[in-house]
Amino acid sequence: VRQSELSADAAERGGYRHFMLKEIHQQPAVVAETLEGRLADHEVLEASFGPRAATLFPQVQRVQIIACGTSYHAGLVARYWFEEHAGLPCDVEVASEYRYRRHVVAPGTLFVAISQSGETADTLAALREARTLGYLATMAICNVPESSLVRESDLVLMTRAGPEIGVASTKAFTTQLVALLLLVIALGRHQQLNADDAADMVNALRSLPSALEQALELDGPVARLAELLVERQHALFLGRGLHYPVALEGALKLKEISYIHAEAYPAGELKHGPLALVDAEMPVVAIAPRDDLVEKLKSNLQEVRARGGTLMVFADSDVRYAEDDDTRVLAVPHCHPLIAPVVFTVPLQLLAYHVAVLRGTDVDQPRNLAKSVTVE
Amino acid sequence: VRQSELSADAAERGGYRHFMLKEIHQQPAVVAETLEGRLADHEVLEASFGPRAATLFPQVQRVQIIACGTSYHAGLVARYWFEEHAGLPCDVEVASEYRYRRHVVAPGTLFVAISQSGETADTLAALREARTLGYLATMAICNVPESSLVRESDLVLMTRAGPEIGVASTKAFTTQLVALLLLVIALGRHQQLNADDAADMVNALRSLPSALEQALELDGPVARLAELLVERQHALFLGRGLHYPVALEGALKLKEISYIHAEAYPAGELKHGPLALVDAEMPVVAIAPRDDLVEKLKSNLQEVRARGGTLMVFADSDVRYAEDDDTRVLAVPHCHPLIAPVVFTVPLQLLAYHVAVLRGTDVDQPRNLAKSVTVE
Repeated sequence: VRQSELSADAAERGGYRHFMLKEIHQQPAVVAETLEGRLADHEVLEASFGPRAATLFPQVQRVQIIACGTSYHAGLVARYWFEEHAGLPCDVEVASEYRYRRHVVAPGTLFVAISQSGETADTLAALREARTLGYLATMAICNVPESSLVRESDLVLMTRAGPEIGVASTKAFTTQLVALLLLVIALGRHQQLNADDAADMVNALRSLPSALEQALELDGPVARLAELLVERQHALFLGRGLHYPVALEGALKLKEISYIHAEAYPAGELKHGPLALVDAEMPVVAIAPRDDLVEKLKSNLQEVRARGGTLMVFADSDVRYAEDDDTRVLAVPHCHPLIAPVVFTVPLQLLAYHVAVLRGTDVDQPRNLAKSVTVE
Repeated sequence: VRQSELSADAAERGGYRHFMLKEIHQQPAVVAETLEGRLADHEVLEASFGPRAATLFPQVQRVQIIACGTSYHAGLVARYWFEEHAGLPCDVEVASEYRYRRHVVAPGTLFVAISQSGETADTLAALREARTLGYLATMAICNVPESSLVRESDLVLMTRAGPEIGVASTKAFTTQLVALLLLVIALGRHQQLNADDAADMVNALRSLPSALEQALELDGPVARLAELLVERQHALFLGRGLHYPVALEGALKLKEISYIHAEAYPAGELKHGPLALVDAEMPVVAIAPRDDLVEKLKSNLQEVRARGGTLMVFADSDVRYAEDDDTRVLAVPHCHPLIAPVVFTVPLQLLAYHVAVLRGTDVDQPRNLAKSVTVE
């Protein structure tokens, strides 16, 4: 009996050593699935969000996102998109904190709750409180159609990631980002987003599955980088702008499955404290697509070089950074800047995965953690 | 010559082993100094903010705070105060991030920059950009009267912490919190804050110097707690609501001077990832004045007890938490809830200080860090 259970499990893993690795590799397909039927030639189909979207979307003046853990990181990325592309102010808050704070709800605020399972206790409680607070409407971005979150929200956009077994969320996160981009475009068209820019964004979204395929080809180089981390107890992840939440997510993956104490900072804050931690035991991982972050970082890190600090740069392949003894560069295939946070997430997932495998932890079922946190 | 320099240094330290310890102990006096002449019987004197305050304050509808490092943590605490007591929406952003983001500035937004030195490069650059963005006015909360930040702001409230020599900021932080509370009360009176509540808040502020004196008496018990941390490489600091930024500040102090990798989380996020890190090597420090945080935390930590995880609770002395083998409680003298974030900061400063002394680091001049970050 035990034998056959193991085989069934292996069959479900589809040839991959762990569910997490399978789910990382499913991302091009489930992202395509999440886009399916929701795009017109140059637009996002508003009806994708439910029948009430046509009435409600023109009234949205502000967005309040709440979520926990990885879903919270998706919300943080989306905040930049809402402000940059839709011109809509956006606040993002951890659900457990949102519940314990007094709120000033501005007119026309759309409340968006993000949760893979739709049963996260704090997120559900926040939604239920929000329904009493005078929001314009509530929306769920969720992966489980029959969940409480979906049933209790006015508007819904399902991610179509399929069942996620690995406790450390991967494909749920990237499909959440896709869902949020669809929302940014749909709401943006009622604001400052013009038809040409919307068409450009829709095209960027269409290119995402193939960009993710290319990112998955980094598996080998990332596995070699993982060897530099496997003996460490610490890591600092740095990003700037909407790549700061990507750094947060990369650090969280490493924490969850490799038990390495990885922490993310906005790059500019390094010199206001955490730089004191940097020595040979504390590698620095920088998420640096196409900006001047790396040169500033290098000057910040100059004085710690003598202590043997290592810098790993995840950079756009169009930007040529020189490698040297202290600096390792991973060239991530160039993509449209809009989708860069999604694409850069993939090598960070792979990094956490390979470090965990090298350390021999239980990748799919890390200690102390549950897949869905249905208690407070 | 060297001898006499050392003596002069020792004299400046006023009998304390380090400037940082002296500055921690100066807090009751410099907080009193920061309040001096700025309070009427039951009100905050608006003129304290400069001659233009009387015209500008009635027009304030929103507050945007920017700062770096420790000053950023002061802003995060103030955000709760602004929303809770003044009913004013408040956003807080790291200066280096603010500079690289597109902004939607709502009418009537007051821009507040916080910096001890008034020369922090990112903060100054953010102020200069803000002056072009249509804010109602700019305000500096600063400790150096002749600084660029003070000269270039429309309104100014000086903290009167006196020169801060220790690189890890202590008295500058607590006086910033006091300055922000003065601002919350002054602005609140033009919003929802009624005279009785303002009077209560003013009284709470007046009680702060003596509350800080009492908190300093925790030096001995905190030094004993420090022994539990001295051999660790990691720590998690947890708080909820406005005590989350206090946890951030406690973790930052420990990072800066003891080089222990301390990270802060909102308590409710523990089970969404960082719980995987908790074992015998990762003590958990909870900032828990008067709420149900500890009971929830204890249930979250139940399953990691077997791994030897230690919980240290900094609790209000009015709340009786049972100590047991895995749980150490530090009873912080009860104070008015308004000033609790200031009071709870003191034992966290002392904790970082004692751990650093036990580890033999250069407390006043930690590696890699500068007192004022005047470059990007």
